[in-house]
Amino acid sequence: MRYFEDLAVGQKARFGSYAVTREEVLAFATKYDPQPFHLSDEAAAQTHFRRLAASGWHTCAMTMAMVVEDMKANATASLGAAGIDELRWLKPVFPGDTLHCETEIIEVKPSERRPERGSFLNRMTVINQHDEPVMTFIARGMIARRRPAA
Amino acid sequence: MRYFEDLAVGQKARFGSYAVTREEVLAFATKYDPQPFHLSDEAAAQTHFRRLAASGWHTCAMTMAMVVEDMKANATASLGAAGIDELRWLKPVFPGDTLHCETEIIEVKPSERRPERGSFLNRMTVINQHDEPVMTFIARGMIARRRPAA
Repeated sequence: MRYFEDLAVGQKARFGSYAVTREEVLAFATKYDPQPFHLSDEAAAQTHFRRLAASGWHTCAMTMAMVVEDMKANATASLGAAGIDELRWLKPVFPGDTLHCETEIIEVKPSERRPERGSFLNRMTVINQHDEPVMTFIARGMIARRRPAA
Repeated sequence: MRYFEDLAVGQKARFGSYAVTREEVLAFATKYDPQPFHLSDEAAAQTHFRRLAASGWHTCAMTMAMVVEDMKANATASLGAAGIDELRWLKPVFPGDTLHCETEIIEVKPSERRPERGSFLNRMTVINQHDEPVMTFIARGMIARRRPAA
């Protein structure tokens, strides 16, 4: 199990492989983001997307699926995430794309109030099969300490 | 149709009514965020959630559904969102909750490079039926001008 004490600025990881299907893009958009360019190639052709593109929130959800799968493979004493900073949708995500994740820890900090935990900032980059970053964000994670701070 | 010229800092809106169902919380979590506390009351009882809580990304998706519904009712020359800042999950969202949105425009800026568009920052607060904010973020929106800048 990986605890606060095991984290260090500069640690990198690469994981995940998510095949984006047309069926799933349409199902997510129909329920949560029914803007025309997320629902048909014809409407998307009128926009800078040029063809059917996934909702940005769908890309977030697919990314989370990869993160949870990685957490299962590499057990971490995670206490969840308090939030997300600087989320940017850089390129459209299309049906047929395959996405993966690259992360880097950019800050590690003991909690001032709670000796049994700490926090960290994890920079996420989601990348498609052409090695193009399609989305980036910084996750504010919380994690348990192996031993409470003195 | 609402264009860039119609936006002003301080403009507020309130819209949406989203009934969070247990079935939907489980369906989203099963596909995109299968952490135990998003899948069963028993596992959630071991955490600060205390009972089954929606994935934070699901709350984002439900919020987008309210935003798109509002965009249909109040036509806006939206060119999409470039990203999100300062996303914070403040309180758990539970099955049985009803959510709504409150927004405030906090910045309006003409594009330096493209005379036919501008950008704005919109502060989003998602609120439950107890008037508790459950999530906040700042959306970076892009919008067309009615007339190109001189």
